[in-house]
Amino acid sequence: MKAARLYEYDPAMNVELKIEEVAAPTINSADEVIVKVGAAGLCRTDLHIIEGVWKDIMDTEGSLLPYVMGHENAGWVEDVGSNVTSIKPGDAVICHPHRSCGICLNCRYGHDMYCDHGLFPGLGLDGGFAEYFITNESSLIKLNTNVTPLEVAPMADAGITAYRAAKRAAALVYPGAYVTVLGVGGLGHIAIQCLKHLCGARVIAIDREPGALALAKDLGADVVINGDGDLIEKVMDATGGGSHVVIDFVGELGVENVCWKLLRQGGELIVVGYGGTIEVPTVELVVNEIKIGGSLVGDYTELVELMELNADGLVKMHQTEYSLANINQAIDDFKSRRFTGRGVIVP
Amino acid sequence: MKAARLYEYDPAMNVELKIEEVAAPTINSADEVIVKVGAAGLCRTDLHIIEGVWKDIMDTEGSLLPYVMGHENAGWVEDVGSNVTSIKPGDAVICHPHRSCGICLNCRYGHDMYCDHGLFPGLGLDGGFAEYFITNESSLIKLNTNVTPLEVAPMADAGITAYRAAKRAAALVYPGAYVTVLGVGGLGHIAIQCLKHLCGARVIAIDREPGALALAKDLGADVVINGDGDLIEKVMDATGGGSHVVIDFVGELGVENVCWKLLRQGGELIVVGYGGTIEVPTVELVVNEIKIGGSLVGDYTELVELMELNADGLVKMHQTEYSLANINQAIDDFKSRRFTGRGVIVP
Amino acid sequence: MKAARLYEYDPAMNVELKIEEVAAPTINSADEVIVKVGAAGLCRTDLHIIEGVWKDIMDTEGSLLPYVMGHENAGWVEDVGSNVTSIKPGDAVICHPHRSCGICLNCRYGHDMYCDHGLFPGLGLDGGFAEYFITNESSLIKLNTNVTPLEVAPMADAGITAYRAAKRAAALVYPGAYVTVLGVGGLGHIAIQCLKHLCGARVIAIDREPGALALAKDLGADVVINGDGDLIEKVMDATGGGSHVVIDFVGELGVENVCWKLLRQGGELIVVGYGGTIEVPTVELVVNEIKIGGSLVGDYTELVELMELNADGLVKMHQTEYSLANINQAIDDFKSRRFTGRGVIVP
Amino acid sequence: MKAARLYEYDPAMNVELKIEEVAAPTINSADEVIVKVGAAGLCRTDLHIIEGVWKDIMDTEGSLLPYVMGHENAGWVEDVGSNVTSIKPGDAVICHPHRSCGICLNCRYGHDMYCDHGLFPGLGLDGGFAEYFITNESSLIKLNTNVTPLEVAPMADAGITAYRAAKRAAALVYPGAYVTVLGVGGLGHIAIQCLKHLCGARVIAIDREPGALALAKDLGADVVINGDGDLIEKVMDATGGGSHVVIDFVGELGVENVCWKLLRQGGELIVVGYGGTIEVPTVELVVNEIKIGGSLVGDYTELVELMELNADGLVKMHQTEYSLANINQAIDDFKSRRFTGRGVIVP
Repeated sequence: MKAARLYEYDPAMNVELKIEEVAAPTINSADEVIVKVGAAGLCRTDLHIIEGVWKDIMDTEGSLLPYVMGHENAGWVEDVGSNVTSIKPGDAVICHPHRSCGICLNCRYGHDMYCDHGLFPGLGLDGGFAEYFITNESSLIKLNTNVTPLEVAPMADAGITAYRAAKRAAALVYPGAYVTVLGVGGLGHIAIQCLKHLCGARVIAIDREPGALALAKDLGADVVINGDGDLIEKVMDATGGGSHVVIDFVGELGVENVCWKLLRQGGELIVVGYGGTIEVPTVELVVNEIKIGGSLVGDYTELVELMELNADGLVKMHQTEYSLANINQAIDDFKSRRFTGRGVIVP
Repeated sequence: MKAARLYEYDPAMNVELKIEEVAAPTINSADEVIVKVGAAGLCRTDLHIIEGVWKDIMDTEGSLLPYVMGHENAGWVEDVGSNVTSIKPGDAVICHPHRSCGICLNCRYGHDMYCDHGLFPGLGLDGGFAEYFITNESSLIKLNTNVTPLEVAPMADAGITAYRAAKRAAALVYPGAYVTVLGVGGLGHIAIQCLKHLCGARVIAIDREPGALALAKDLGADVVINGDGDLIEKVMDATGGGSHVVIDFVGELGVENVCWKLLRQGGELIVVGYGGTIEVPTVELVVNEIKIGGSLVGDYTELVELMELNADGLVKMHQTEYSLANINQAIDDFKSRRFTGRGVIVP
Repeated sequence: MKAARLYEYDPAMNVELKIEEVAAPTINSADEVIVKVGAAGLCRTDLHIIEGVWKDIMDTEGSLLPYVMGHENAGWVEDVGSNVTSIKPGDAVICHPHRSCGICLNCRYGHDMYCDHGLFPGLGLDGGFAEYFITNESSLIKLNTNVTPLEVAPMADAGITAYRAAKRAAALVYPGAYVTVLGVGGLGHIAIQCLKHLCGARVIAIDREPGALALAKDLGADVVINGDGDLIEKVMDATGGGSHVVIDFVGELGVENVCWKLLRQGGELIVVGYGGTIEVPTVELVVNEIKIGGSLVGDYTELVELMELNADGLVKMHQTEYSLANINQAIDDFKSRRFTGRGVIVP
Repeated sequence: MKAARLYEYDPAMNVELKIEEVAAPTINSADEVIVKVGAAGLCRTDLHIIEGVWKDIMDTEGSLLPYVMGHENAGWVEDVGSNVTSIKPGDAVICHPHRSCGICLNCRYGHDMYCDHGLFPGLGLDGGFAEYFITNESSLIKLNTNVTPLEVAPMADAGITAYRAAKRAAALVYPGAYVTVLGVGGLGHIAIQCLKHLCGARVIAIDREPGALALAKDLGADVVINGDGDLIEKVMDATGGGSHVVIDFVGELGVENVCWKLLRQGGELIVVGYGGTIEVPTVELVVNEIKIGGSLVGDYTELVELMELNADGLVKMHQTEYSLANINQAIDDFKSRRFTGRGVIVP
């Protein structure tokens, strides 16, 4: 089959994936499933992998390369192991990025992402920038009949990461309260849509790109704010004293230390983007009784819920498509912010 | 001032309110407020009061009549007691129906409706079918500048009763789940709007009136079902095995014993309408692990939240207006279901 | 191996289990596990099975008999299927009664008991009144090193049923509130212990047997009340106006319609015992805003939590042991209430 | 009356309070209450006030001194304003430290500590290091008949601050989980007791004083750890991979940046002590999905709940008493950690 493989890490990113013919994966265990890739989303984490940021975590022995990236996959079931009963060849599916064990206590609590034995195809083992890839039964969700893999692939990671943060925010607020979303990219534009359907609070969207702000407005943001200038003053004014919840999809470049200052007493900052370091005096935490917490990729059930919102037409991925042959162009466009929303690779 | 007063109870309802000149109320206590009535909603409870259903509860000594009904009030502040600081004459306000004490433990937990010393103007003391009525500071909410008393009066009781039930339902569901609303009248049509803005679940509306079903569809119900025929089968089909939550705004005429059969395993029935008696085998409760619970008028903070949804244009009262002079016509039209939504009296 | 088998249903219960030699179970599927039974609790459901109450549910084709009852099992792993990795032969384990699939959406939400494909050894297939029985990996929990199967077997069903109800109650109350437990038998005596360690509320225990009330007091009940006479008045007095939560382990004999009258405004009745029919006017549900809901067997994670409480010495099973050879005596003693707490069969 | 007054701020704390005769307070408003002080707790905040740390917040015009500190008060009602109905002269009461308005939206949600118009006697206006002090009706809680003001005064602030943090922790955990308490002083020793009665999780107590650790063990801590050495390793070992919740009553001296490293994935740090600055990389927040949040003084209803735990004998203040004449000795002993638990001033 055709696949795009990474041959070396390069902090400067002066390296291209090699599109080449490789052996297609085959079933080795009773719970495995081969998926014919319909589409695979391109994630900022893929850029970090190329840069070598993840090398020490996912390639500890230095023997991984060459390998196939791509962890936001959707497609059609091609082959199934002997114990698989919930899906069959031909079914259109989206693939939760984590192959969880289903047996450990974290899995039993529904915390797939905390699985003691989880695997993450696309990080540390071959992923979906190829014609086929292998995963297990418990990561798969059948698509509704009116949905195609191409429309939803990035929901598998970008989508549920945004959904998980939005769902947590929604549970904290009520009509008249404010949720502020910082960064209207591949994740932020999904979070805005989710928030508008999960709670009655008002949504403030902040970005520096006019295109991103226009998209935010289209998707239902009640207020859009340009991120330049005195952000704290702008948000205090718009909210009458601070936002009840802030979701930070940036997490670096200084934004991480502005975000918690946008909160009102009792407020919560949900951190999704990363890179920077938060510095907060304990007295500020206590007197204002604010919370700061990270949010990871969503669990399997959250992907199920997001796919229902999508099937109902309430949350859609705004994306730009590239063929597998053009994946290096897609990577370059992503680095240079030449598209809004998400880039998607189609084999 | 002009007021409409009830002079006798009559189970057959062959009795009219008398529109007459009475003394306007005056401030007696430091926390009291006189409100010039802008509008007052007409509630099914008013019909029950005329019938004498509430006599033993609110008129135990038999000395209440003649008195002024009307417990869904909005208007403008006319005069305030010496301790009142949060509002001033001229402010447009909506009146939470309960004058709560603010001191008892129930009040401190925010459960105004459980207040140990609460009063309910319109039930047991004079209400708002008049030019002026008296309440206290802690029942009042200032209207947003773009909102008039006339638009929102029935939110004070019908609105928050529906909102409270919808909010409880919303906290129980997730995208892909179903909430079924039985009865699309003055309360049900508000519940549908609230549900669509408080959660991502699907809303099923059930009624027997084509006009009510059309209104439900307009307000965002995902599925509308005519209440005739085999309701259980219809709902099981529409939901693929039962509704996650059912809100019953009828509560009598046999509906009360159909509702809990519409639930799936783990589901909850929220009962708002009343009159009938539920009979449920304990084995059904246990094996299906369903819950059945009543829901009362909403608390003060719930009226605040509902007014925010209203100010944002997300939830609107569908209503028909009558002058105070025509209140007996309004009552007659209500009895005969000659209008959809709510009837409102304008002094 | 030796096993006790049921050969016929008899509403009058004039029938004995036959202790006989049968073939031991063998592994047929990669996720199965053979457990050498250490002990198996005797449950009221076993009596109902003998009476034929469950025949239409678990023996629809009439081909089940003879079979081995026993669904509260603990013991040692004897043999494991090829995919089993979390336990190994020799491990001491307790067996959640439900063999859940781990794949369906209910399982993914952690609701094992709602599993679309669950099996329940002891109901409809052979259980643990034998030397060995078969289950699957996902039903097993390794015991802490200081715990033996004999001490905990009935925790597998009686224990988690009580724990689930107590946990739900604990989440509804706060210090100063009251939880009333009706029926201090095999389940009730566990619920009392759980409540005293899961929340700071006061526990009221009600029973008619002096021995049961004495046990309740020993286990930490704050108030014990004899169930004879005017129970409503007694509870209203003890609680100053009604219990915040009531857990009904009886559910029949008229108790089911007393329980909801013991609640204060906003209170909740949790129904575990069954047999009777609740009749409640909707107006009572609404005006008092009470909830009535069933509670089923606990989920896998609830058994894990209960085993932790047990390992910490906080919750213990009060039980009477019988050899497998004496199982018919155990059944007879149970019917005649000759022991308090739980009866346990030891092969 | 006799009162101890502060005449100047001194960062070096070489200053004594002056015990002198001053005019007793008198009722000025209908909701005010004069309390005859039974006891007043001595808080670390009092030390900070003397040091001048709070000068810019509570004494902005520089005209406060001389004034009476003391914000942890209990005693007997001496006189009441004309609108006060819930208590009467002679009643034994404990005084929530915040005089909240009861009208603003924060109050209506039950968030007394966020009150828009709150006053805090002892900070910015005269407090309880005197024979009498003045507060309002809505801050008072009648004591149970078996409780005296002397036993409970520090519950009014130290107690509810610990209770609030413990209650939040308890809602996050389950049997088998770990809550780690850092600092077993006036607050920490209350938190340990509360945790043991609010949830079934295990409590780990950390301090450097042997006396504090012995007290922790007496009060029910499951594990006590000396704070010297490699705390992270010790806690990782004791918990098998990290604590589910950590409550930090220190918040400075480097402890604040150890605490979040004691958490397991999904864990939460509750910060109560303050002084230091937390520095945490966003990638740590996200990958481990941890939360860090401050916790303030508890609300009125939390003081009610704590007083119920106290009345039931479950949570007791460990304290050392000083006469008002010896208040300067008490302050000196506090600075030098010459007592465990709390110091209390008795007029």
